[in-house]
Amino acid sequence: MRLIKKSSVAATPSETEKSKTPSATSHRRQFIKRAAGVVSLGATGTATQLAAEKLPESWQVPGGDFSNYGQPRTAIDSPIRWVSADRSLSGDGVSWTPLHALEGTITPNGLHFERHHNGVPVIDPARWQLTIHGAVKQPLVFDLNTLHRYPMTSRISFIECGGNSNSLWHPTPAQAPTGYVHGLVSCSEWTGVPLSVLMDEAGIDKNARWLIADGYDASGVAVSIPMDKILDDTLVALYQNGEPVRPENGFPARLLVPGWEGIVNVKWLRALRASDVPQMSRFDTVSYTDLQKDGSIERFSFEMGVKSVITSPTAGDTLSQHGYHQISGLAWTGSGQVSRVEVSTDGGNHWIEAVLQPPVLDKALTRFRLPWRWDGAPVTLRSRAYDSNGLAQPDRATLLENRGTNMYYHYNAVVVFSIAADGSVRHVYA
Amino acid sequence: MRLIKKSSVAATPSETEKSKTPSATSHRRQFIKRAAGVVSLGATGTATQLAAEKLPESWQVPGGDFSNYGQPRTAIDSPIRWVSADRSLSGDGVSWTPLHALEGTITPNGLHFERHHNGVPVIDPARWQLTIHGAVKQPLVFDLNTLHRYPMTSRISFIECGGNSNSLWHPTPAQAPTGYVHGLVSCSEWTGVPLSVLMDEAGIDKNARWLIADGYDASGVAVSIPMDKILDDTLVALYQNGEPVRPENGFPARLLVPGWEGIVNVKWLRALRASDVPQMSRFDTVSYTDLQKDGSIERFSFEMGVKSVITSPTAGDTLSQHGYHQISGLAWTGSGQVSRVEVSTDGGNHWIEAVLQPPVLDKALTRFRLPWRWDGAPVTLRSRAYDSNGLAQPDRATLLENRGTNMYYHYNAVVVFSIAADGSVRHVYA
Repeated sequence: MRLIKKSSVAATPSETEKSKTPSATSHRRQFIKRAAGVVSLGATGTATQLAAEKLPESWQVPGGDFSNYGQPRTAIDSPIRWVSADRSLSGDGVSWTPLHALEGTITPNGLHFERHHNGVPVIDPARWQLTIHGAVKQPLVFDLNTLHRYPMTSRISFIECGGNSNSLWHPTPAQAPTGYVHGLVSCSEWTGVPLSVLMDEAGIDKNARWLIADGYDASGVAVSIPMDKILDDTLVALYQNGEPVRPENGFPARLLVPGWEGIVNVKWLRALRASDVPQMSRFDTVSYTDLQKDGSIERFSFEMGVKSVITSPTAGDTLSQHGYHQISGLAWTGSGQVSRVEVSTDGGNHWIEAVLQPPVLDKALTRFRLPWRWDGAPVTLRSRAYDSNGLAQPDRATLLENRGTNMYYHYNAVVVFSIAADGSVRHVYA
Repeated sequence: MRLIKKSSVAATPSETEKSKTPSATSHRRQFIKRAAGVVSLGATGTATQLAAEKLPESWQVPGGDFSNYGQPRTAIDSPIRWVSADRSLSGDGVSWTPLHALEGTITPNGLHFERHHNGVPVIDPARWQLTIHGAVKQPLVFDLNTLHRYPMTSRISFIECGGNSNSLWHPTPAQAPTGYVHGLVSCSEWTGVPLSVLMDEAGIDKNARWLIADGYDASGVAVSIPMDKILDDTLVALYQNGEPVRPENGFPARLLVPGWEGIVNVKWLRALRASDVPQMSRFDTVSYTDLQKDGSIERFSFEMGVKSVITSPTAGDTLSQHGYHQISGLAWTGSGQVSRVEVSTDGGNHWIEAVLQPPVLDKALTRFRLPWRWDGAPVTLRSRAYDSNGLAQPDRATLLENRGTNMYYHYNAVVVFSIAADGSVRHVYA
């Protein structure tokens, strides 16, 4: 009998180390062969006959044709973004990435989350210009062809809206699948010109500690970004997952400010003004600003916290079978890399280290998975993430204790799902 | 003056080491500030006035609305797949990934290359079944819901058609941009169930050294794959770049056989039959088989060779400016990781090590880049790749010497572009 390699699937060294904890045992050898949905045909050759005899209908007709640009399957259950928009103001709202219907870590471009303040502008690339001005030695204007000649670099990076998951500041937990609560985060491979190169061409005045970015959309967006971050790893992104950035994601150029809240990743980039002080625009002050427990205001809270959420199973699901399931989820942090994700299936008494899907990248979504066997008893599932800077995802009580209850942005507490005896999954605070 | 970090952009240790070679010098400090397309506005605040005075039209109208599933910009120059199909047989042909119009390493799903032998079948996921039969202890049939409950894993991997680049076996070089000669290769993050897990459930007979896979399309596809590879790293892929695999790419399930020629990555997967011998189907024998120099036939040449190609500049381009350009391209190998890519800008006399964009992943496309300054003289550009197994991309003369001129598949020689004094770029054999 040939040795079957299973090490990459269900047992990794890190999991093995933790397998003394109660929930990780006996997941190794048997999956769901006996469950409904797998028909065992016996060893008498029945399957061969079945395959030979039942010619599929699709073998009897030619298939559909080629296309210049492909489309996903459209069906009632195909993954879509859920749009929650302001009815009184066209173009103001968000669309949510359906994280619960996706797998892996890359978000396809058509499902990247969007936050628009005044819709998607129409931009003629032949007339587009990027201006760098203010406290610089040499103000510059770039057209698009020229910008494309600058050196480019690529990175896989998440973008998360500062307001992601914010319904969970409410005292009653939202009953919606993961993506429609936490789906204002997406992850792409971005390619563009390091903004440090362009700033170097302009020459930054030594007191210019801020860069104020605005965009071509009609929202009046203007955000103030510390120059240190601009020079560290900010890109003028021209490509997303290989292709030119789409109009809805900022064509022809947007900022990518890795790990920092979505608003500073300015789309339809128009002008960059160097300054010794921030602009204190409404995006710097009224929005993306939180009232703290002590009555003070927290502004410029750019970095997104360490966070994880289970994507499968999720609220609204019903587990139809006892036995083996794979718990799957996403973790990320604005400060560096995810270092560890733990899952508890027993109310937080024991925690099992989940398998992190390589490559685990800086400021990118990280997929975690854990084999789990459901015995049919009511149970809760929760995950918590840790990062390379020693940050840990707080539980909800700790987050509220530390931050108070007047917050609107930056919710990153542990998310808990309950599974009832009938298999129904709900979001709970527990 | 603040120190501007440029190390991640144009100078890496590997490049610095090689900088004694003639073409790598003086790329560091100055890009294209003085070129057309960058307007210097002086230090008198003109740019600020410009930005303030010229209110863009897009600030005066609300933008477009949200969508459930986003689309790329459609314009005459938006990247599309070029379709070359058999007019006499609908659904037989290929569509090419426009590598020359893309950046980074991920291919967006709508631009993944396709090779169909009889078009895209319509499959009802509620009726789809995967049968494992033949030389197994327990023949099994899986429905889609059940398959989704099995443990999944993800990997970023290229798929390349065995016939990619095959126009270059001809004595006259093709004058087409890179993607329309070499674009039968694409790269995605694939997620699915390791086939080793399903084979373990069925129990493989000890003499079953082959697995014969077929699909639901009407092409009669059947390919024989060595069981060792099946048990090593083959996936039953259910997701591509996060979302369910699209109909044109094999919905609801396809094989991913990392690094092996496209034909064995069977789409619309239907049945897997374990056997002690290959089936010797027409896909095993007539197609994907090469006549060697000595008159013998090479069959089962699964692994794709080490290969690289420059994507920018490319044939058909015209360089409108002297001075700085970034040479950008892709490298890959079916045997492991790309270890090094070298570029020559002087007819192959000197070679400069290009910067490889991290992460460099096993059996994935790898982006390489090199800063280059064009002085306006005629020049040739070429790249050659090396891999972690010590394989080197051959030049064309060596490939022809070793393999003869009767080959149809597996062309992986060094690709050369010439640039004339007028900036026009052509593909040449040189």
